[in-house]
Amino acid sequence: MDVFMQAAIDEARLGLKEGGIPIGSVLVHDGKIIGRGHNRRVQNASAILHGEMDALENAGRLPASVYREATLYTTLSPCAMCSGAILLYGIRHVVIGEHSTFMGEEKLLRDRGVQLQVHDDATCKDLMQKFIAAQPQLWNEDIGH
Amino acid sequence: MDVFMQAAIDEARLGLKEGGIPIGSVLVHDGKIIGRGHNRRVQNASAILHGEMDALENAGRLPASVYREATLYTTLSPCAMCSGAILLYGIRHVVIGEHSTFMGEEKLLRDRGVQLQVHDDATCKDLMQKFIAAQPQLWNEDIGH
Repeated sequence: MDVFMQAAIDEARLGLKEGGIPIGSVLVHDGKIIGRGHNRRVQNASAILHGEMDALENAGRLPASVYREATLYTTLSPCAMCSGAILLYGIRHVVIGEHSTFMGEEKLLRDRGVQLQVHDDATCKDLMQKFIAAQPQLWNEDIGH
Repeated sequence: MDVFMQAAIDEARLGLKEGGIPIGSVLVHDGKIIGRGHNRRVQNASAILHGEMDALENAGRLPASVYREATLYTTLSPCAMCSGAILLYGIRHVVIGEHSTFMGEEKLLRDRGVQLQVHDDATCKDLMQKFIAAQPQLWNEDIGH
């Protein structure tokens, strides 16, 4: 297991432990994690802190050059909002834990030149499958359904 | 002047007064403002709190049905991130103060069925033109350049 995907999974598990939606993300630059986060819809009553957004926020204000060289790891295929953030900052590489429980805007990202590496990670899928089965309403709220 | 666009402009001016980037937004539902905000890059050292994102965050967790009936007002054409948030939540109507200082993802939004009303508002343009001239580096940071 890639240490960075493992860190994203650790974030997802931390979110679950807090009573939240188990999606985690880390932003990696130059071989180091410079931002990490997880979905905070429940914890912060937040409509915008998806895992990826939380990682980007926690990374702080960065020069464009850092984003261009960074890789974003996320346990789940990024939704339209998180994909939009990826495009805004010109992040070129995204590693995705799985896209079978939710398919995000992967086509849009590829069309704009973002390189995606999609895993079929059993841990990521298990976290989401159990969560969606347990709290379908909360999950639907998170993806605007 | 539309009272809701005026409220978005008031938010932009508040942001400027705080030393921030003068972009404001309000989310309107059923004739009332249910969320308002402005860019907080400087104030909160935030990479994700664009005006529209701040308005969505301040509106709190909402049922999908509210977003579908809501209108988002923003003083400036929404960037990829904010457009992605609009798509995530299925907001169908967006009113834009101006798009001459920055053209956001209007084509993507229209292609996905979002109805845009674009004004050529002199106040919105004046706020941005003066800000960009005064602080080009900060502006470039905000749009990932």
